[in-house]
Amino acid sequence: MPLTEKALIRRIRRQAKAPRGRGVVRTGIGDDAAVLECPAGFEVLLTTDFSLEGVHFRREWHPPDSVGHRCLARGLSDIAAMGGEPTAAFLSLALPADLAQIWVDRFMTALLRLAKQFEVQLAGGDTAESTAGVLADIVVVGRVPAGKALLRSGARSGDSIYVTGELGRSAWILSLLREGGLAALGAKAKSRYTAHAPHFYPQPRVAVGRWLREQGLATAAIDVSDGLSTDLGHICAESGVGALVREAAIPRPSGLPTSSLHYALHGGEDYELLFTAPGSRPLPSKIAGVRVTRIGEIIRGRDMWLVDSHGQRKPLPPRGWEHFSGR
Amino acid sequence: MPLTEKALIRRIRRQAKAPRGRGVVRTGIGDDAAVLECPAGFEVLLTTDFSLEGVHFRREWHPPDSVGHRCLARGLSDIAAMGGEPTAAFLSLALPADLAQIWVDRFMTALLRLAKQFEVQLAGGDTAESTAGVLADIVVVGRVPAGKALLRSGARSGDSIYVTGELGRSAWILSLLREGGLAALGAKAKSRYTAHAPHFYPQPRVAVGRWLREQGLATAAIDVSDGLSTDLGHICAESGVGALVREAAIPRPSGLPTSSLHYALHGGEDYELLFTAPGSRPLPSKIAGVRVTRIGEIIRGRDMWLVDSHGQRKPLPPRGWEHFSGR
Repeated sequence: MPLTEKALIRRIRRQAKAPRGRGVVRTGIGDDAAVLECPAGFEVLLTTDFSLEGVHFRREWHPPDSVGHRCLARGLSDIAAMGGEPTAAFLSLALPADLAQIWVDRFMTALLRLAKQFEVQLAGGDTAESTAGVLADIVVVGRVPAGKALLRSGARSGDSIYVTGELGRSAWILSLLREGGLAALGAKAKSRYTAHAPHFYPQPRVAVGRWLREQGLATAAIDVSDGLSTDLGHICAESGVGALVREAAIPRPSGLPTSSLHYALHGGEDYELLFTAPGSRPLPSKIAGVRVTRIGEIIRGRDMWLVDSHGQRKPLPPRGWEHFSGR
Repeated sequence: MPLTEKALIRRIRRQAKAPRGRGVVRTGIGDDAAVLECPAGFEVLLTTDFSLEGVHFRREWHPPDSVGHRCLARGLSDIAAMGGEPTAAFLSLALPADLAQIWVDRFMTALLRLAKQFEVQLAGGDTAESTAGVLADIVVVGRVPAGKALLRSGARSGDSIYVTGELGRSAWILSLLREGGLAALGAKAKSRYTAHAPHFYPQPRVAVGRWLREQGLATAAIDVSDGLSTDLGHICAESGVGALVREAAIPRPSGLPTSSLHYALHGGEDYELLFTAPGSRPLPSKIAGVRVTRIGEIIRGRDMWLVDSHGQRKPLPPRGWEHFSGR
């Protein structure tokens, strides 16, 4: 059944009513603009992320609840990387006229479930008919105590480089999907998605980012959305420093082929946090229940290096984004 | 020449550096999220609007500077309708790989010119490659003194209904373009666009909205983006009232055919302000240099009526959005 814009707006409005988030939304869906309260002593964080069919997902590979989950997760992950608390989201959604309502229902249900988990209120957006597949753009708004946001620009020579969780799984899954479609992930639909939940249902590291900000430990932070080499490159460029990464230290999922180093170095969409902290201050091995691994250190200069298991140092160019630019 | 995402980001970053807006943007493009200051006593306004090729514009009809201008104008108009001051904008832009750089340059130049005019800083966004034409989503952030935003929900029986400027030109231009393409607007490209500037380069009524809010005069407000009948319908629905509109009073551009009443009633994208104010308080004929016309009054009930030149009353259904839904 075709879905009109009006029906979509009614649906979003009804579904979005439940959680009131952290109470910052005074006027949400149903006016020309949303009105957000801003408590004294806080600053507002804002990030926008596209989720475009054929670019960021494919309907034949990604079930609608994965597309909805990932759509919001991308924005939440950016707020996490700033050390902020997400408060509100805005969804712009353009849909083909012949899209089944059940697809939209599942997309919205997953998006709103993740929103509820993080106490985020869906407070507005836009809808349109699309002539070219499902097009979503998510805005996530957050808050952070004034002057305390974790930026990319604070890394200093001598800092240690850390990453949460594991890297490379998402790019590996994509490579399997490209080669053999969904069948490459196993016979049963349900176990395909749960076995590879970090790709289909990534968990934004909001609690880790908040902990780092509260402890005043991180000098710089970013989320690994474009790939370790590219995202570390952003920290180096904004901080005016270089980096040295130890190949053997990079946490990779078990079960991946030996070629998984490539995915871990240059694959994107793992939505882990990459951050730096003074080398003199040891970190716990887990933060907010998430494993944290030291993978190298910040050095002088502007270059990035990879040290292999034989102690050999070779250049580490930022290749994540370019490599997967067609994704 | 093809435009890579990196080149686009560099371009946006360079071009966006100029105006610092009202100083609310602490950290803009170049981090995971923008950091916005929020002065005490203010609330944050936020609106998002798609500009999709084939839906909101056509590249063969709309020159790139019109597309860029209209993209931002849509968001500014929403902030105007809330009585707010726009402060920052975020542009998500997905472009076909084969799009000429000159198109993007002109799009960005026009968007940034309008941003500068309204002291708005471009503070972030997202970029992607599009497999389906030019896709833009604009976020405009604004501010308003706490509790003072003009909402859709405050209209009361006995209020007068006002509209700024003139209605119907934009839909009329679109109908000409549909019938005869650009040639229908005249032989010379330059005069085509300037003669029909309200369609190609609409001026958001920010100063009018602010004046209304400062004077405490408007009980409800909305911008005419979907058409008078639909947008007045939104005010009636949110306020729980009905409306009576006098056909002869609706301000229409001179030179339009007699059928222009249809465009004025149901055509969208004029980006004028539609607002209500107590009938007992007369308004000036111009606000911030813009003509203001009383077109009817708010009544009890939930129905909308049109009174024709013979004094006959007939139902006025909200037909703007449905009618132009394929636009």
